[in-house]
Amino acid sequence: MKSYKIAVIPGDGTGPEVVAEAVKVLEAAEERFGFRLDKTWYDYGGDRYLRTGEVLPEGAAEDLKQYKAILLGAIGHPDVKPGILEKGILLHLRFALDQYINLRPVVLYPGVDTPLKDKGPEDIDFVVVRENTEGLYAGAGGVLKKGTPDEVAVQESINTRKGVERCIRFAFEYCRRRNKGKKVTLCGKTNVLTYAFDLWERTFHEVAKEYPDIQTDYAHVDATCMWMVKNPEWFDVIVTDNMFGDIITDLGAMIQGGMGIAAGGNLNPEGVSMFEPIGGSAPKYTGKNVINPMAAICAGQMMLDYLGEAEAAQAVEAAVRRAVSENLKSLSAGRMGYSTTEVGDLVAGYVRG
Amino acid sequence: MKSYKIAVIPGDGTGPEVVAEAVKVLEAAEERFGFRLDKTWYDYGGDRYLRTGEVLPEGAAEDLKQYKAILLGAIGHPDVKPGILEKGILLHLRFALDQYINLRPVVLYPGVDTPLKDKGPEDIDFVVVRENTEGLYAGAGGVLKKGTPDEVAVQESINTRKGVERCIRFAFEYCRRRNKGKKVTLCGKTNVLTYAFDLWERTFHEVAKEYPDIQTDYAHVDATCMWMVKNPEWFDVIVTDNMFGDIITDLGAMIQGGMGIAAGGNLNPEGVSMFEPIGGSAPKYTGKNVINPMAAICAGQMMLDYLGEAEAAQAVEAAVRRAVSENLKSLSAGRMGYSTTEVGDLVAGYVRG
Ligand SMILES: CC(C)[C@H](C(=O)O)[C@@H](O)C(=O)O
Ligand SMILES: CC(C)[C@H](C(=O)O)[C@@H](O)C(=O)O
Repeated sequence: MKSYKIAVIPGDGTGPEVVAEAVKVLEAAEERFGFRLDKTWYDYGGDRYLRTGEVLPEGAAEDLKQYKAILLGAIGHPDVKPGILEKGILLHLRFALDQYINLRPVVLYPGVDTPLKDKGPEDIDFVVVRENTEGLYAGAGGVLKKGTPDEVAVQESINTRKGVERCIRFAFEYCRRRNKGKKVTLCGKTNVLTYAFDLWERTFHEVAKEYPDIQTDYAHVDATCMWMVKNPEWFDVIVTDNMFGDIITDLGAMIQGGMGIAAGGNLNPEGVSMFEPIGGSAPKYTGKNVINPMAAICAGQMMLDYLGEAEAAQAVEAAVRRAVSENLKSLSAGRMGYSTTEVGDLVAGYVRG
Repeated sequence: MKSYKIAVIPGDGTGPEVVAEAVKVLEAAEERFGFRLDKTWYDYGGDRYLRTGEVLPEGAAEDLKQYKAILLGAIGHPDVKPGILEKGILLHLRFALDQYINLRPVVLYPGVDTPLKDKGPEDIDFVVVRENTEGLYAGAGGVLKKGTPDEVAVQESINTRKGVERCIRFAFEYCRRRNKGKKVTLCGKTNVLTYAFDLWERTFHEVAKEYPDIQTDYAHVDATCMWMVKNPEWFDVIVTDNMFGDIITDLGAMIQGGMGIAAGGNLNPEGVSMFEPIGGSAPKYTGKNVINPMAAICAGQMMLDYLGEAEAAQAVEAAVRRAVSENLKSLSAGRMGYSTTEVGDLVAGYVRG
């Protein structure tokens, strides 16, 4: 039987609850489709940090390289200063494992409520390919004369040809694989960020030449946000840098129904990839069995697809689609008409068939 | 009679058409409220650039300092490479005239269609105070090994205590002046841009101490975009940096009904301020008498308010509100049920009373 070594990091707050349901659904898929996820659990997160004083133990990223994929719950603890865990765990792993793509499908499933008027599932179906290891996330910069009236703080966006090219290439390849497979839109700010997006634009046009079957388009980041709200049907695959990707994928999450359903993959196609629901740790709902685990289940679904278990991935997607269209009253915590564990049972049941 | 020296830059594409209607409305206000706008017209824009080869004549910014305010139509010409006119005219004037605030009211007028479900005028009523002279717009950065596989492109966000503080202070002062006057939200990315937004955050908390009557809040830029779509009623005054401000104000324009109605002010409260509709030059509609001039009229209204002609500003706002709720079928070019000049006549008529 095919077997994949997987690391599971439930993390903070409601992370463990939603990961448990994702694992429940994955187990149903394993049984039905005859493969095995060989899971190792890690306690990385805020509690461990508060207990031990270290965000991650030494060699953590190195150790995680033995796995094919990582399933992550949520990082963020009310007693830890914001930034420490995000930088120390989430961003650290993205960088150390060279997960250079952040892949965020923005799909409105039938039955899910979008805040947009007159838009339905046929209008909201695109993917954002976000560069995930460079740009403003490099952590480069500094501060001069801190705390004085003359203080200057500098933050640098660093973009390499290699980093930009592999991201853009991924976007074109992904576009080919997608059913629609029509168009890649570069989202940037060429008229202002003339150094960074000159590199992006040149690379985009060069790589595009290798994909004559795929249309190309360009939109400034400000315009992209407008069209995502007004004409989301214009988009197929959007490729962009780390910071703009962060912004437009959250906007994307909202138009596809919110944090209850949005999942993403931090991909290193040649290494270890990490899948996560993109909502936070939602501490106020912890332990109440009310949080929506659907986003974590979708992260699991993306992981299956990535592992090459396409049939299993399709079955999970179909099960999620069925549950949100036939059963769930809402995607919001406490208003689903089902508890967290019941949603897991429901989707797992549909996967079993 | 009170008189104000004003520069008018109609600019490119439909700029001259919409500015003509704004001026028509301003003239109605001048007559009714007994003041005078002493206007000087400038031909800056794409046509002049193509004719003369210079984006702005030498000393243009210096010359404009003699005015109290500038009314700008639109910059952007189909035959000029994107970036040249924006940087050479719009951004140049913002910087050279030290217009350190970009003020963008996001208000949904009754009768205007928003793309958001279940949101009405009572929900969409906030203001974005965008820093307008620093950050990623500094133009700082560079490129190494251009055109090789080892190319590195760097773009720098430069933030000064002085620049950040005056912007935040403006936001608090403005919040006090607003009817609601409740809350200032800092929009940033403290968990990733740890140099730039550490300065912003510290300054924000220090300035806030001087305004104990005003609540403070913080939202990451990605979350801000989500809440603008899901819960715009949460916002009162948002203060943010140049790049994030660019993004969220365009999103704001969309939720308030689009480019047909969105106006902004580039303010130097101690110098010359510049008011503009925030849509582009819309070349394809040029000369057709179909473009919506309402945003330019609103820019004129903001200018009146800025000049201290509060009664006149209120009259123009009331006239705009009346026209969009009672008359216009849509805010989109060609679908208003009125021509460009008819909209100007209508609003001017309402201002005359
Ligand atoms: C938690 C934070 C550091 C992270 C980011 O900014 O990348 C998050 O917003 C995301 O999009 O995954
Ligand atoms: C035209 C462009 C340079 C400008 C900007 O980025 O500031 C515009 O988008 C705006 O918001 O006024």
